[in-house]
Amino acid sequence: PDTQSERDERHLAIQRVGVKEVRYPLTVRIGEQLSPTVASWSLDVALPAEQKGTHMSRFVAWLDALSASGKPLDATALRDELAVMLDKLHAVEGRIEARFPFFIRKHAPVSGVSSLLDYQGAWIAEHRAGSGTTVWCEVVVPVKSLCPCSKEISDYGAHNQRSHVTIRAELMEPPGDRRRPPPPGGGESTRERPVVDSAVELGFEALVRFAEASASSEIWGLLKRPDEKWITERAYENPKFVEDLVRDVALRLNADARIGRYRVEVENFESIHNHSAFAVIERE
Amino acid sequence: PDTQSERDERHLAIQRVGVKEVRYPLTVRIGEQLSPTVASWSLDVALPAEQKGTHMSRFVAWLDALSASGKPLDATALRDELAVMLDKLHAVEGRIEARFPFFIRKHAPVSGVSSLLDYQGAWIAEHRAGSGTTVWCEVVVPVKSLCPCSKEISDYGAHNQRSHVTIRAELMEPPGDRRRPPPPGGGESTRERPVVDSAVELGFEALVRFAEASASSEIWGLLKRPDEKWITERAYENPKFVEDLVRDVALRLNADARIGRYRVEVENFESIHNHSAFAVIERE
Amino acid sequence: PDTQSERDERHLAIQRVGVKEVRYPLTVRIGEQLSPTVASWSLDVALPAEQKGTHMSRFVAWLDALSASGKPLDATALRDELAVMLDKLHAVEGRIEARFPFFIRKHAPVSGVSSLLDYQGAWIAEHRAGSGTTVWCEVVVPVKSLCPCSKEISDYGAHNQRSHVTIRAELMEPPGDRRRPPPPGGGESTRERPVVDSAVELGFEALVRFAEASASSEIWGLLKRPDEKWITERAYENPKFVEDLVRDVALRLNADARIGRYRVEVENFESIHNHSAFAVIERE
Amino acid sequence: PDTQSERDERHLAIQRVGVKEVRYPLTVRIGEQLSPTVASWSLDVALPAEQKGTHMSRFVAWLDALSASGKPLDATALRDELAVMLDKLHAVEGRIEARFPFFIRKHAPVSGVSSLLDYQGAWIAEHRAGSGTTVWCEVVVPVKSLCPCSKEISDYGAHNQRSHVTIRAELMEPPGDRRRPPPPGGGESTRERPVVDSAVELGFEALVRFAEASASSEIWGLLKRPDEKWITERAYENPKFVEDLVRDVALRLNADARIGRYRVEVENFESIHNHSAFAVIERE
Repeated sequence: PDTQSERDERHLAIQRVGVKEVRYPLTVRIGEQLSPTVASWSLDVALPAEQKGTHMSRFVAWLDALSASGKPLDATALRDELAVMLDKLHAVEGRIEARFPFFIRKHAPVSGVSSLLDYQGAWIAEHRAGSGTTVWCEVVVPVKSLCPCSKEISDYGAHNQRSHVTIRAELMEPPGDRRRPPPPGGGESTRERPVVDSAVELGFEALVRFAEASASSEIWGLLKRPDEKWITERAYENPKFVEDLVRDVALRLNADARIGRYRVEVENFESIHNHSAFAVIERE
Repeated sequence: PDTQSERDERHLAIQRVGVKEVRYPLTVRIGEQLSPTVASWSLDVALPAEQKGTHMSRFVAWLDALSASGKPLDATALRDELAVMLDKLHAVEGRIEARFPFFIRKHAPVSGVSSLLDYQGAWIAEHRAGSGTTVWCEVVVPVKSLCPCSKEISDYGAHNQRSHVTIRAELMEPPGDRRRPPPPGGGESTRERPVVDSAVELGFEALVRFAEASASSEIWGLLKRPDEKWITERAYENPKFVEDLVRDVALRLNADARIGRYRVEVENFESIHNHSAFAVIERE
Repeated sequence: PDTQSERDERHLAIQRVGVKEVRYPLTVRIGEQLSPTVASWSLDVALPAEQKGTHMSRFVAWLDALSASGKPLDATALRDELAVMLDKLHAVEGRIEARFPFFIRKHAPVSGVSSLLDYQGAWIAEHRAGSGTTVWCEVVVPVKSLCPCSKEISDYGAHNQRSHVTIRAELMEPPGDRRRPPPPGGGESTRERPVVDSAVELGFEALVRFAEASASSEIWGLLKRPDEKWITERAYENPKFVEDLVRDVALRLNADARIGRYRVEVENFESIHNHSAFAVIERE
Repeated sequence: PDTQSERDERHLAIQRVGVKEVRYPLTVRIGEQLSPTVASWSLDVALPAEQKGTHMSRFVAWLDALSASGKPLDATALRDELAVMLDKLHAVEGRIEARFPFFIRKHAPVSGVSSLLDYQGAWIAEHRAGSGTTVWCEVVVPVKSLCPCSKEISDYGAHNQRSHVTIRAELMEPPGDRRRPPPPGGGESTRERPVVDSAVELGFEALVRFAEASASSEIWGLLKRPDEKWITERAYENPKFVEDLVRDVALRLNADARIGRYRVEVENFESIHNHSAFAVIERE
């Protein structure tokens, strides 16, 4: 008996139903590189009011096929795969979210010694009847912040700390890209797609640079003595309130036509308190 | 030098700036009872484009005064205190969020033996220029869910598991309540306030009941043997998909005129998988 | 049928069986003050090889009685209560662990303005046949550390960050304290109890002071501008490697005869890396 | 100035000093397969009393070299790499710990449909002067447990839930393996190495099987309807208390001569309570 396909008499649509906290391997594209990682997936569809339930196992079947294909996840693949998932679930609306750690190889500022720095990334794709498919890229970037007030009032030193810059950016679809089949349910997008000024698709590396370039100093996994001197003095010369940091990131996002809506949050793990200072700018 | 009060030339307003992960003691009202607990606070204000920074220490000063007063937090107190906080920060818009564990004394269904069950609660109050002050009450309720499909297809038994029902409900302001001073900045609410059908303010206990009454079975901290038999059979007689559970909670919320917008999420920590099934209904 | 009391034929004793992640209210004694808080409890007993199971509900019944009594938890109460719990479970060996946040009211170093700082505390009591009852007090203290190397090599500034000092200390039983009944099972302690040099029982406040006095600077919840100057300069004048900090705390613990075995760990949430530096000294 | 190499006058040795929460990519060997994953590393050495500090950056340099080599981590590689790390740090004692998710492809019991299940694994290697090098393998295995008491007292149904079986096992070194160079500092092991009865090195898959075979039922990522019937009935026919589960795993560990010391913990996320039941057996 296919209990899930029975009629439901409560007349209540469910916006999102599916699976979450599913861990599965994933290959992501970071710049030119393909990197293996492990993602935590959240997958859901909208369920019409008259339908009793969805078929949960199909989400995992879809995910296993994606993972087995070895296909790297980028914005284009995500749009295609969302259409496949909705088709498999016989659904008109739905959402994919994958959260994972990734790495960028960085060179220390003076010695040039190289090491990996870890970041937290996420891909989110959502299809809604009224607004078509939107794709979001999210990254959490660890940086250093140094307090301008502490520097100004003190005879020497200034308190500083690790901060997290979290950027969630909507990626605008490149114009003239018509290879893609229309999504199931046919919902035509009603939002204007701005012209994209660059042939290069926006990715994690660009968002990471926006955050690192805005901080008192970026950070590294491996530093030698001259590097440590450099980063200490660089941060002291470049103090930033949490408000400065969030605004400087927002200015950079505003200047990039490939980005639609966004949300930036900066959190300073204050070294003179046991709590955080934070600031958020959101463009809707 | 009051660096934070200088003019900022980036022309970017900040929607939210403040402190988070601040732990402070709190007294909450659960039914007729006042209960001490420990909350994690997130406090922020909006910062106009021309202003360089906010005064972070004033949030903690406000919080310390609130905590020292011993005043229990309920919807009315929260509205009043938000006005005080905004005034102290010279801000027009802002937000208070407090998250904390709380307890309800429950009696086992057969033996009647009593014990405390722990829930996660939150109070959220937000004041925006366009929409006035809104107050939200959130609760995470642990319950038991038993799978209808597993029951139907199996000769005996049915898989079941712990589930979390998370309800976030906007509390409608009682009509005719004019004791409260208008909020700073004078933003008049443009949303309709529906008539409230009850003199009793909606609180955590009501939301907990909505969740527990909708589950395959509610749960307890302390059960004797006859109670364990009762809960086992009760869940078996009362199977629910995650879709059923979220709809049954939504029906109860729809029937209560004291509730405005809401969001219900049910998460089943599946006992046949290593991931969760979940469903969300949101009323905007 | 009392399945749990049946004989087990696998001939395997279980060192610890019980409940964990039980949240229940608790009153703790901090200095002269009684403070309400919420604890996460782990409670277990040893199960002999021939016994099939323990009675889990008795742990919660014991906990509910303790909580309802309102009796504050200190080392003496913990010893007494462990005996009660073992008696209730018909067990010879067992363990109580309660983890909870607590607060100390602190005054800022220049302005004197007061606020609460939150710490993580734990009480652990264990009774083993060979070694009698031991009681441990644990505290996690947030402090500030400033890097000596960064200060020395840089023309200005020095990187600094939040650190956690975690101290777990065995409390020596005061000599001549014979009011307490012998534990069930009669296991006489074989460990020497050193003479205690002070009439005052060691508590959380003393451990917190050991950590704060050893750091580059202690921290506060609420600071005014002159306080921020003070803490900035104080840390700069008082640089400490993670190795220095852990040794300075250990020196203080070594000097206190009320402490038996201990473990100190310091973790620096490095502000120039995305990882921590840490160091551990343990006295067995 | 090499501040870290100065003499320290506090006369306190530090048992462990190093870095933790370092995230770096890793390849692990699961059965015949090499799998990429992301690990959280904790690396430390012992610091003699007269030495002021260690050189933290050398841990990351060692880790980067290991990661760049692409060499898969298994027990043999871990022993070799620990010697390399100690050499690089000029240390006599030290420890490596890497924690990571890994996957095993499993086939559903009736339909045979395949999917990945995620587990949490860890490799730990430690070298101490008195006891030589020990290597530990740890795994957290999610399974299903069904309560025997609930089944026996109820007219129908039985409560069941997800459980975690955590096994930490010391791997005995194969006899006659003399290819490996003696560790730096020359500490000759004083512990007896039992004869190993198998040419196959113990790995994650064997530990996972010990846990899954002991549960009421193992679990899968993807199940079709006949599989769900199978797992429901299998668990009902095979009820286990937390005490049964921990003992049945211990019996299997006792029967394998490749395992030295071990610790097994089972945690049931009870579906009739909001807390866990747990049990621990440890062989020292």
